[in-house]
Amino acid sequence: MAASAQLGKAADPERQARTVKSIQSAGLDGLVCASASEVLLLSGYWPVMAASIAVATADGGVTVLVPEDELELAEKTAWASLIPYKPAGLKTLKNPIDLVREPLASIVKSAGLERAKLGLQLGHGVQPASYLVMNEYRSSLPELLSEVLPHAAFEACDDLLEELKAVKTDRELGLLSHACAVAAAGLAAAADAISPGISEVDVAAAAQAAFDKTPEAEGLERSYGYFYCMSGPNAAKASAAFARTRRRVIEEGDLVMIHANTCADGHWTDLTRTFTAGAPTKQQRDVRSAIDEARQAALAMIRPGVSGSYVDKAARAVMEKHGLGKEFKHATGHGVGYAAANSNGRPRIHPLSPDVLCENMTFNVEPAAYFDGVGGMRHCDVVAVTEDGARVLSDF
Amino acid sequence: MAASAQLGKAADPERQARTVKSIQSAGLDGLVCASASEVLLLSGYWPVMAASIAVATADGGVTVLVPEDELELAEKTAWASLIPYKPAGLKTLKNPIDLVREPLASIVKSAGLERAKLGLQLGHGVQPASYLVMNEYRSSLPELLSEVLPHAAFEACDDLLEELKAVKTDRELGLLSHACAVAAAGLAAAADAISPGISEVDVAAAAQAAFDKTPEAEGLERSYGYFYCMSGPNAAKASAAFARTRRRVIEEGDLVMIHANTCADGHWTDLTRTFTAGAPTKQQRDVRSAIDEARQAALAMIRPGVSGSYVDKAARAVMEKHGLGKEFKHATGHGVGYAAANSNGRPRIHPLSPDVLCENMTFNVEPAAYFDGVGGMRHCDVVAVTEDGARVLSDF
Repeated sequence: MAASAQLGKAADPERQARTVKSIQSAGLDGLVCASASEVLLLSGYWPVMAASIAVATADGGVTVLVPEDELELAEKTAWASLIPYKPAGLKTLKNPIDLVREPLASIVKSAGLERAKLGLQLGHGVQPASYLVMNEYRSSLPELLSEVLPHAAFEACDDLLEELKAVKTDRELGLLSHACAVAAAGLAAAADAISPGISEVDVAAAAQAAFDKTPEAEGLERSYGYFYCMSGPNAAKASAAFARTRRRVIEEGDLVMIHANTCADGHWTDLTRTFTAGAPTKQQRDVRSAIDEARQAALAMIRPGVSGSYVDKAARAVMEKHGLGKEFKHATGHGVGYAAANSNGRPRIHPLSPDVLCENMTFNVEPAAYFDGVGGMRHCDVVAVTEDGARVLSDF
Repeated sequence: MAASAQLGKAADPERQARTVKSIQSAGLDGLVCASASEVLLLSGYWPVMAASIAVATADGGVTVLVPEDELELAEKTAWASLIPYKPAGLKTLKNPIDLVREPLASIVKSAGLERAKLGLQLGHGVQPASYLVMNEYRSSLPELLSEVLPHAAFEACDDLLEELKAVKTDRELGLLSHACAVAAAGLAAAADAISPGISEVDVAAAAQAAFDKTPEAEGLERSYGYFYCMSGPNAAKASAAFARTRRRVIEEGDLVMIHANTCADGHWTDLTRTFTAGAPTKQQRDVRSAIDEARQAALAMIRPGVSGSYVDKAARAVMEKHGLGKEFKHATGHGVGYAAANSNGRPRIHPLSPDVLCENMTFNVEPAAYFDGVGGMRHCDVVAVTEDGARVLSDF
């Protein structure tokens, strides 16, 4: 093993307790996760290269195998024990899967997992980008574990992880609020930049530059943000799963949608504001007022115990009342935080959602109307469920 | 099936021929790939959400299953047949793996792959981020294929793909050159911004803004770029696998490293320039001249048939001659194009590299010196191997 375990400096006893409870309730002895968001969930550390591996056991132990060059970052944010390993260097051409073999074997054996029942990430998932490139262990990690622990049993723990990620702790809510706050400067700069004659790329660049420099990011190790501008007919296409800035020049009277996903040390937002280039028309004002009303209806419905489908229906009924049912092409929301732009993030605020809201769930509320070939308007906020109802984390 | 197959408009007969040859040489009947870079390799389309699946067969057929909202983009860049599928929407809460089940079954069956020997991505890999979130099928795709094709045999094709990605076609070289060209504006803006008293975040933001607005990106569907600034002691840490901009204020005499990874429709660069804040000292000039000499020695060694290890040794010998052997902490280079910042990208320009250079391989050449606690200097270019030697694609 590269070095002895060191304990990270952060703490989140609430998260640790919930993890233990989940592992025990599932009848498991532990979890082994390598996707960046799940390593963050289990340990407090959001890996950069997605080459770290977290081992969490039913007795509350959490150990993360971290590439040596990420140790400094990991120590600042993790509460788990950290075991550094040497990444590829001058002395070896090995891949991460070969580099982690020995230290991982040592971790699982010292945790007494030889005959354990372990949860692994085997099913489909969605990962926010933790860097511009990311490792993928694919089938090589389950295979390595089968070799190292021939008497252990493995099963998929994807659902367990989705449920754990849906409900935030106070620490996580703080980071998500911080991620919303850092977005504000970018959105404000976009609003200032929008005018007829300027291109979408220039508006997005202005938002990005303001975000990149915002002092709100101080105190965060990694503040990432992506800002997109979609105007006129391009905004009509913004119901897609992804946003996209093009070179189109904004025209007088266009709806101009600014979409942002920002993150504070791995905790992600999903935010949209729509502006008008020039004075809004009567129809644009009507759409905006329908969307505001739908947003208020959704927010008013939010409280612990309510189904996500009811929140969707509350917003959808308003849009239908205003003759905009067909134009509201997607669900009212989806879980955010560990998921940035994942329509399956829990809780799903969707007509068919089986998810019931609990305190400290976080999701977006994004009523919208898309008019093919013409324009689109969306207002997307991040909200948390409290005992008393919805708390909007992006109230700016 | 959602709709009938449509053929993309692009073409790369050279790539198609090489793919067929590889599949046949490996004794396979086809490949099924879902990672974004490999879908790009096989089809010309770089998926956004990494939820597309490419099926390439030994007879030259390539079909890509694409989420409907990515079809417009895919049609502009792919040469493969495109089959759209409906992504999650108001009518369903299904995950991508459930959404692709039927259309994928239909594709592999109409391709006659019931008893085929198929290559899958099962081993470790590194993926550039195709969007701020990406799908991961993990074990769910091999499982689905086993169910749909119970009489087929599956094996890992990761090495075959790495070899295919290492050698570029003329079309791919054009895109990689374009990706280098779009980086130039960002690097120039960084150089202009650097001065004592300005912070790393402000320099990086200036580079990013210039990049975001550069007219060089015209003609590309997706031009992504990440610019980092690391100054003084932070530049000493830049030998890590990842770059990182901090809030440090640049001081007179600092070495200031600007690192960039840019991409043109999925083809990625890896570029670094180092500047001095104020007049360089004698020692800084000496290090720069050693790095220049090492770069020239590496470039002079590059030609088809030469081992990657020789190119590394050529650069390393120069650094050692100047007493900077210990400070040159990483390999001289690694494959770029499909890999942005993957130290295992082929060909590896590394002391232990078994890779032999071929015409049209592309990689970076990045001689560097890191002085712990003080500073670091790196010059990183993207080069292509030609019949006559090295061609620097980032010669600015």
